[in-house]
Amino acid sequence: MKLNKQKGNTNKSEYTLKDLIKVSKGSYQGSFKKSHTFNGVSKIANNTSKKITFAEDEKHIKKAAQKAQGLVIVDKEDQSSIEHRLLVDNVRLAYAKLAQLFAPLPYYQPGIADTAEIKENVTIGQDVSINSNTYIGKDSQIGDNVIIASGVKIGENVKIGSDSVIHPNVVIERDSKIGSHVTIEALSVIGSEGYGYVSTEEKHYHIPQLGNVIIEDEVEIGANVTIDRGTQSSTVIGQGTKIDNQVQIAHNVRVGKNCLIVAQCGIAGSTVLGDNVILAGGVGIIDHIEIGDNVKIGAASIVTSDVPEGSFYLGNPAQERMKELKARAVRNKMPAYRRVLKRLKDKE
Amino acid sequence: MKLNKQKGNTNKSEYTLKDLIKVSKGSYQGSFKKSHTFNGVSKIANNTSKKITFAEDEKHIKKAAQKAQGLVIVDKEDQSSIEHRLLVDNVRLAYAKLAQLFAPLPYYQPGIADTAEIKENVTIGQDVSINSNTYIGKDSQIGDNVIIASGVKIGENVKIGSDSVIHPNVVIERDSKIGSHVTIEALSVIGSEGYGYVSTEEKHYHIPQLGNVIIEDEVEIGANVTIDRGTQSSTVIGQGTKIDNQVQIAHNVRVGKNCLIVAQCGIAGSTVLGDNVILAGGVGIIDHIEIGDNVKIGAASIVTSDVPEGSFYLGNPAQERMKELKARAVRNKMPAYRRVLKRLKDKE
Amino acid sequence: MKLNKQKGNTNKSEYTLKDLIKVSKGSYQGSFKKSHTFNGVSKIANNTSKKITFAEDEKHIKKAAQKAQGLVIVDKEDQSSIEHRLLVDNVRLAYAKLAQLFAPLPYYQPGIADTAEIKENVTIGQDVSINSNTYIGKDSQIGDNVIIASGVKIGENVKIGSDSVIHPNVVIERDSKIGSHVTIEALSVIGSEGYGYVSTEEKHYHIPQLGNVIIEDEVEIGANVTIDRGTQSSTVIGQGTKIDNQVQIAHNVRVGKNCLIVAQCGIAGSTVLGDNVILAGGVGIIDHIEIGDNVKIGAASIVTSDVPEGSFYLGNPAQERMKELKARAVRNKMPAYRRVLKRLKDKE
Repeated sequence: MKLNKQKGNTNKSEYTLKDLIKVSKGSYQGSFKKSHTFNGVSKIANNTSKKITFAEDEKHIKKAAQKAQGLVIVDKEDQSSIEHRLLVDNVRLAYAKLAQLFAPLPYYQPGIADTAEIKENVTIGQDVSINSNTYIGKDSQIGDNVIIASGVKIGENVKIGSDSVIHPNVVIERDSKIGSHVTIEALSVIGSEGYGYVSTEEKHYHIPQLGNVIIEDEVEIGANVTIDRGTQSSTVIGQGTKIDNQVQIAHNVRVGKNCLIVAQCGIAGSTVLGDNVILAGGVGIIDHIEIGDNVKIGAASIVTSDVPEGSFYLGNPAQERMKELKARAVRNKMPAYRRVLKRLKDKE
Repeated sequence: MKLNKQKGNTNKSEYTLKDLIKVSKGSYQGSFKKSHTFNGVSKIANNTSKKITFAEDEKHIKKAAQKAQGLVIVDKEDQSSIEHRLLVDNVRLAYAKLAQLFAPLPYYQPGIADTAEIKENVTIGQDVSINSNTYIGKDSQIGDNVIIASGVKIGENVKIGSDSVIHPNVVIERDSKIGSHVTIEALSVIGSEGYGYVSTEEKHYHIPQLGNVIIEDEVEIGANVTIDRGTQSSTVIGQGTKIDNQVQIAHNVRVGKNCLIVAQCGIAGSTVLGDNVILAGGVGIIDHIEIGDNVKIGAASIVTSDVPEGSFYLGNPAQERMKELKARAVRNKMPAYRRVLKRLKDKE
Repeated sequence: MKLNKQKGNTNKSEYTLKDLIKVSKGSYQGSFKKSHTFNGVSKIANNTSKKITFAEDEKHIKKAAQKAQGLVIVDKEDQSSIEHRLLVDNVRLAYAKLAQLFAPLPYYQPGIADTAEIKENVTIGQDVSINSNTYIGKDSQIGDNVIIASGVKIGENVKIGSDSVIHPNVVIERDSKIGSHVTIEALSVIGSEGYGYVSTEEKHYHIPQLGNVIIEDEVEIGANVTIDRGTQSSTVIGQGTKIDNQVQIAHNVRVGKNCLIVAQCGIAGSTVLGDNVILAGGVGIIDHIEIGDNVKIGAASIVTSDVPEGSFYLGNPAQERMKELKARAVRNKMPAYRRVLKRLKDKE
């Protein structure tokens, strides 16, 4: 089996049942030969003999038993009458891994486009795609298999590790260090100037931001994300962390490993997140805060103090979630008590 | 009358009074000939004989009667002494339509710039402007009269309907379907990868997002907007919906027709909005929620449950607006009751 | 002394002690000759004889006395045993000014790149850098020493004052007027179409936005910022104002001088900010509000009414900060009073 990169959007690749068993670490029950080939994933309703689908709960298993003509990923304990079953430990994980085989790899075009501007002393690895209208500043290093889509601008002294994909019109400013297997969606900026000023009576003087940004391996960054470089040292995004669209990360922030940061969050300067932290959408965290490992913060919360390891916080200002829910529950009852309260107060 | 597109910013076009009457469906009272020409709109204060302005209330009508030398759009019941009046059913609508005649059409430059990169099997309609440093992936279709400004990047298998205008540095990812008469302001991305993961103890596995985005006709999208493509099917923006700057729309969201989504709103995955929904600025809606037709959500509200048709919600979590306003009204009075409450509780 | 611009990222410039004394307006105590040269700034811990650092408090002064081998910026009253001291009025300000000497000036490359598209009647000053894949619309004027990074798109009739720096992939739409010494970080848009509609039963009609944006001198604008142009007149950002990343400023807004607007704020249409206003991160201000001079608004507040000069507001809706803090303090105590309140109400 050769897990080739798909060239562009039109996916012509096929994988055999044998390939799929290997990738999913599953076992197969059914009448397909090991050499039977599949060319994509589908919903159950339009699952033909060349497609892969999955069924997790009773309803979908029943539907798959009736409709699915191709391969159905099911739990290893499954006892259903589905015709072609791939039994696995984790249905969704197996689906994700198999679907990935068929995901297109846009902007794959090995070589350097004529309209790319490559400055002096740039190192470029094997099988790198540098598309049209890109810019790579001097002393930068681009690892093997990297894809740089059209319009990407890379400053000086940047390093991008192997197998990373940079989508169109992304900007990576000077000195940024990007790991391997990193994805950055369109129109994000890595290494923008941090927001630091010394203010006097007359004006605000900018403090030059002379640090950089470090993005570790397997980080995924959404679209229109902004990550500022450090003042003297580095802003760091830890390995395996996944950042959604329109997230703002200020200078000197350190985000741990395997965090999930959902859309429109903002993290202010020098705040530190531990590992496996989950920020739901729209969370704001003020500067110089410490968030422990395995913390969860509910949607649209504003964090204004340190959060201990393992906590689930909610609200503005954010507090322990159960405490916040109690306060929320009583809030709407207060208007009904207004008159009795007023009377009691007047009596005092 | 020929409603030509304006070529670029410097508008040299003139329209006769006859043209303006036709476009506005109004009637004219005054001494201009039908062949008198106008070359733009103005405020009342600097309204010369070649300019169009409007007056809606007593104060502005009085001012227009004294100062305006050109054409003044007024309500059809107007009885004022303004010299040149265009009487219409809807003053602001008539103004919008006439002002549109003089609005420049930047980046209009029919043909394909030398520095554009057009991949194989791209279909391009009549009178299309493809400006410099653009990229169009293979199998894409560009309709008649479309304007693609400098730096726009379009992935594979994208379709853009006729008369749409795409501003500089916009990114439209693969498989997106854009309707006719759509405008997308600068630096927005359509079809970015959705945020979907299967998490295990060790890491988060990305679920490939194999769907697309569908933008229906007459949609207008602001700057720095992000719209993710669907997981297996489509993220949809309904006909006539208008989206302001910095809005985030996650995978599988469906927005109905003629909605207004003001700046910095965020809509999480798989949420459905009906028709004619209005989201004020900064509204967040969590995932898998249903918002009925004709719903209004007040500024900066966080919606965490379904909202029935025709409701006006406000707050975090959002609730029926009057209920929220009552809770707000009593909130600031609570500190005054603290002592009496404490005494009562101690007595219990 | 010649305060040359640094060419690119690798800073080879050195400055003499005499230069540093002049720039900082400080006085020197120590054994270096006036001709001793410095080549950068550092933290105290790695401060060699060629580097500059600073020490503000007792802890850092002690550390500097032990470790620093180069120049240490200290307060003019300093009595410490630090070997090489630059005594100044404002330690951080002196540091900012000296660090600025060594800050790289990326994208400095005088001349016009081959892949730039310059339309007719564009005026370009002395020593201007116009990098690759840029676009400048007709009738635009670019002042002396301006740096236009790769991928920047500038519409028609735009003016950019001298010494301004525009980072990659920024979009400046038609008619915008940018002052001198302005910085705009990557992927921001100046002059996008404002969000204005006339709504009827059937649809929303766009009101053409025929005004522009004026950015005054010494304004700094972060990444992914959106500033819409005015409807008939100008959206204005006053001199010396500093705007962080992902800020949205709607049409017709006027921001005063020397304001600080932190990340992810949103200011709705026609709102006016006085001078020296500070908006912390994530603040939203609704339309048609007046914010007086010297106002502060706390993080994530939503301003729904005018704010008088000199106030400090907080909350949603924002109110005088002390009032908000009192309401917050009592909020969490309410659940404890619930039973007693219910009993009292039932007795009524």
